[in-house]
Amino acid sequence: MFYQKLQQASQKNQSLLCLGLDPDINRLPIHLSGGGGAIFNFCKQMVDACADLVCAFKPQIAYFSANQAEQQLEQLIDYIKNNYPHLPVILDAKRGDIDATSKQYAIEAFERYGADAVTLSPYMGIDTLEPFLEYENKAVFLLCKTSNKSGAWLQNAMIDGVPVYMKVAQLAKQYNQHKQLGLVIGATALEEMQKVRAFDEHIPFLIPGIGAQGGELEKSIEYGLNKDGFGAVLNVSRAILYASNQEDFLEKAREAALALHQQMPMIR
Amino acid sequence: MFYQKLQQASQKNQSLLCLGLDPDINRLPIHLSGGGGAIFNFCKQMVDACADLVCAFKPQIAYFSANQAEQQLEQLIDYIKNNYPHLPVILDAKRGDIDATSKQYAIEAFERYGADAVTLSPYMGIDTLEPFLEYENKAVFLLCKTSNKSGAWLQNAMIDGVPVYMKVAQLAKQYNQHKQLGLVIGATALEEMQKVRAFDEHIPFLIPGIGAQGGELEKSIEYGLNKDGFGAVLNVSRAILYASNQEDFLEKAREAALALHQQMPMIR
Repeated sequence: MFYQKLQQASQKNQSLLCLGLDPDINRLPIHLSGGGGAIFNFCKQMVDACADLVCAFKPQIAYFSANQAEQQLEQLIDYIKNNYPHLPVILDAKRGDIDATSKQYAIEAFERYGADAVTLSPYMGIDTLEPFLEYENKAVFLLCKTSNKSGAWLQNAMIDGVPVYMKVAQLAKQYNQHKQLGLVIGATALEEMQKVRAFDEHIPFLIPGIGAQGGELEKSIEYGLNKDGFGAVLNVSRAILYASNQEDFLEKAREAALALHQQMPMIR
Repeated sequence: MFYQKLQQASQKNQSLLCLGLDPDINRLPIHLSGGGGAIFNFCKQMVDACADLVCAFKPQIAYFSANQAEQQLEQLIDYIKNNYPHLPVILDAKRGDIDATSKQYAIEAFERYGADAVTLSPYMGIDTLEPFLEYENKAVFLLCKTSNKSGAWLQNAMIDGVPVYMKVAQLAKQYNQHKQLGLVIGATALEEMQKVRAFDEHIPFLIPGIGAQGGELEKSIEYGLNKDGFGAVLNVSRAILYASNQEDFLEKAREAALALHQQMPMIR
């Protein structure tokens, strides 16, 4: 079950850090670019360099799709599952559709790629979620309060005195009997994070926006941790992946991940 | 430019019909299933059977991704562009992300697949749209009021006295200086469609929900048409694609498309 897998991974590595795998082909180390399989190679090496420092990996599918690299994404998730079976893979895809189509997206994420969890958009309602929730051991992170400013037009708008992001949190709580749900809340939205955590003490948060986007690590941990002492999944991508684009890129990446890991709280 | 291409296609074929290409491998004609390339073959034949009756094609990417068939989707869109260059291709992907990631999705839709337009979710705000709008000749259909019931929890909620779907219409109007935007409004939401058309006389609507989902064709035309006498893109997928799964599947599909085409208004 995803919730337990995430808890155990957080405990084992004493980490809330999630390595975001966003392989931008224009930013890969010079000596890696060009060759077939460069995306897989880059990500695989990042995974190996950071596997003892993280509680999860989060490949962002757009970076693969833009480069006809679906097969490399399959390879990458297979590699993680074979070599680090204790570490969950969250496929960041932000899909959102209904009935028969949502079912196809669930097949894509869970059967084709074998991800443990996937990010989804709540705009089309519970129809979007249902086909995903049929996979008992898998989880869904619903977009709640995203890390970008321009999401506020809708996410912070008030409906009957309740902001939309809180409505999403309510929806998630309602469908979370089997601990299959999580919420995406940006590290740039600490106030909202605190409010949602007060409303739901258990649901895991996937927290983007640390590093390149300027979100605060310490406060994200303070507000994000759940009652079981984990459940704040702090995603960092660029600050680790692109710490250097020279021959030392893996050392620099590990240094960046280590510096973040040193700020982790003790996880019981 | 997309707007003109859609107008010209609607005029040429005297049609508002859009053929949705949702190749469900469990519903393909028996004699087509199984072989490599069956998805492309099925869709290609459907395209040929209906090309004189439609104003656009709308492949739904989930059906391809679930089956590792991205290459067949590339082939299909290439086929349409080579054989029916006057007919726009709307890639139904409902993507939604920010900055660098949204840029990757734009590359996926417009450069990799060469689609003329794509569907996007508005949940993360204008950040999602911007990388797509940089492609001058391409367009975006924003999810506004979807055809499913469970979308209403958010889409029909009121913000400062204005329903969310209308807020999306306002956002679209604001960014539509170059006629690159459209809205997705279900044929099952006629009241909302009428209100949005009153608010914005020009923006094209992509209208799902006719056929299998029970939306009304006649009213969708009445409320959906824009001031230029087109701009209601009536998507039908299953009612055409799966009219038969026997050897006569193409005849039956064409019959279904013809029956719909006969209900089209005159397009000036």
